Amino acid sequence: MRYVSFRRPDGTASFGRLDGETIVELATDATPSLKAALAEGSLSALTDGVTFVAADIVLLPVIPDPAKILCVGLNYAEHVKETGREQKAHPAIFVRYADSLVADGQPMVKPNVTERFDYEGELAIVIGKPAHKVAAADAWNYVAGYAAFNDGSARDWQRHNIQFTPGKTFPGTGGFGPALVTADEIEDLNALRVQTRLNGELLQDQPVGDMIWDIPTVIEYVSAFTPLSPGDVIATGTPGGVGDKRTPPLYMKAGDKVEISIGTIGTLTNRIIDEQ
Amino acid sequence: MRYVSFRRPDGTASFGRLDGETIVELATDATPSLKAALAEGSLSALTDGVTFVAADIVLLPVIPDPAKILCVGLNYAEHVKETGREQKAHPAIFVRYADSLVADGQPMVKPNVTERFDYEGELAIVIGKPAHKVAAADAWNYVAGYAAFNDGSARDWQRHNIQFTPGKTFPGTGGFGPALVTADEIEDLNALRVQTRLNGELLQDQPVGDMIWDIPTVIEYVSAFTPLSPGDVIATGTPGGVGDKRTPPLYMKAGDKVEISIGTIGTLTNRIIDEQ
Repeated sequence: MRYVSFRRPDGTASFGRLDGETIVELATDATPSLKAALAEGSLSALTDGVTFVAADIVLLPVIPDPAKILCVGLNYAEHVKETGREQKAHPAIFVRYADSLVADGQPMVKPNVTERFDYEGELAIVIGKPAHKVAAADAWNYVAGYAAFNDGSARDWQRHNIQFTPGKTFPGTGGFGPALVTADEIEDLNALRVQTRLNGELLQDQPVGDMIWDIPTVIEYVSAFTPLSPGDVIATGTPGGVGDKRTPPLYMKAGDKVEISIGTIGTLTNRIIDEQ
Repeated sequence: MRYVSFRRPDGTASFGRLDGETIVELATDATPSLKAALAEGSLSALTDGVTFVAADIVLLPVIPDPAKILCVGLNYAEHVKETGREQKAHPAIFVRYADSLVADGQPMVKPNVTERFDYEGELAIVIGKPAHKVAAADAWNYVAGYAAFNDGSARDWQRHNIQFTPGKTFPGTGGFGPALVTADEIEDLNALRVQTRLNGELLQDQPVGDMIWDIPTVIEYVSAFTPLSPGDVIATGTPGGVGDKRTPPLYMKAGDKVEISIGTIGTLTNRIIDEQ
């Protein structure tokens, strides 16, 4: 199944199931959001509501307001190598705030204070059940599904000092979409390629299976230090090929189109605009 | 004024004004929390409710559920020096989650997965108004008040990789209290000493004025990359003298008493317990 969060034609927030080109609304007063449905465990049991065509609604980020968005740094060897950093025994984890998220089709915002606005195509996982101290062997039970993520980064602010947060959570910099895709839609997750295209040019292209710490290991590690809730997001890290490490460097600017494709999980597309 | 969040004798959450040893309740159905009162700008206009004696209530963290808790790393030269790190042109900023907070008088929890549980006495500022892209010259207008903070740190998890978050947000590791102290209670903020005592021994002791990046500069920097809301917290960094950098190292263990005192802002006291 594919689930989306969206604004109805009247502007109010809702969510539903994507059936091809149409969206079957599932939101009710009792279950107003995809996050609420995950928390209730009611997602597959909700009654179909009205149907919208895609052109009539505006997508929201897959989960518009995750309580926690944890990002894995340095999770593909090619990216570790290009950054010149050392591979450690545990993943690097930093945080992005929900008010930095944008949906598929919405503009990503280049902050005015940076000229080094870079893409990072990533596989995001959405947590489906409260998860604290989960063993890797049980971790798949806590995954509601997947989406594409673009961990848009102000490289200078990320490296102002030794912690990444300042460059990783500017408003409008985190692409997250288009849909929450459940495991039944995916034949072989590890074979799916995380691909980033800027203005059509393929710049990142590695299979999910190239991750240094696989998804169960990441969930075990993260849930060991912080409790996760339904709707929380883990962005699992970016492959090699980021713009900042190219020769010459390549940054995103107003008018650019950036696409993150992850096979059957779908394509997240955003245009870049300057901050107003 | 001094404001506290607390549980009533019936266990429900409330907040009020500290008048010496008694607490005058200010919560109403319309304004149920200190964060709500800050958001409304109503704090000084609320009507006095019932009075509790301190023994009848249980303190909560000053703000029990800040949307954002941003921590400044490496903000005292003595601490930068003891860590062996380089001083940069901008502060290091990382994130702690609200579910890691504990109140004055509540136990701080040593995670079972670490034997390197360390204190960090800090001055915390609480944001009083929505703050985005605030200039340093205006920054004081956005400060609701101050409290003591103990940024309890699992030093091994903090250094598993290059990002601090894993060691900085274990449940029960962030002491925050006892009260929100407004500026009228403070004669000379820069002269107040941030003092940490473990079992009575003074281990950290530097004035607020020793900060490398002062409070207005920190607010300008943080609000440049992420919008702040009433009730958000900035922990402004720890002085020299952390346990991890002592010879021999000194860590907190079950039964220890840790106190963070910041002059007239008050003393945050926590006993350490092992994680259950």
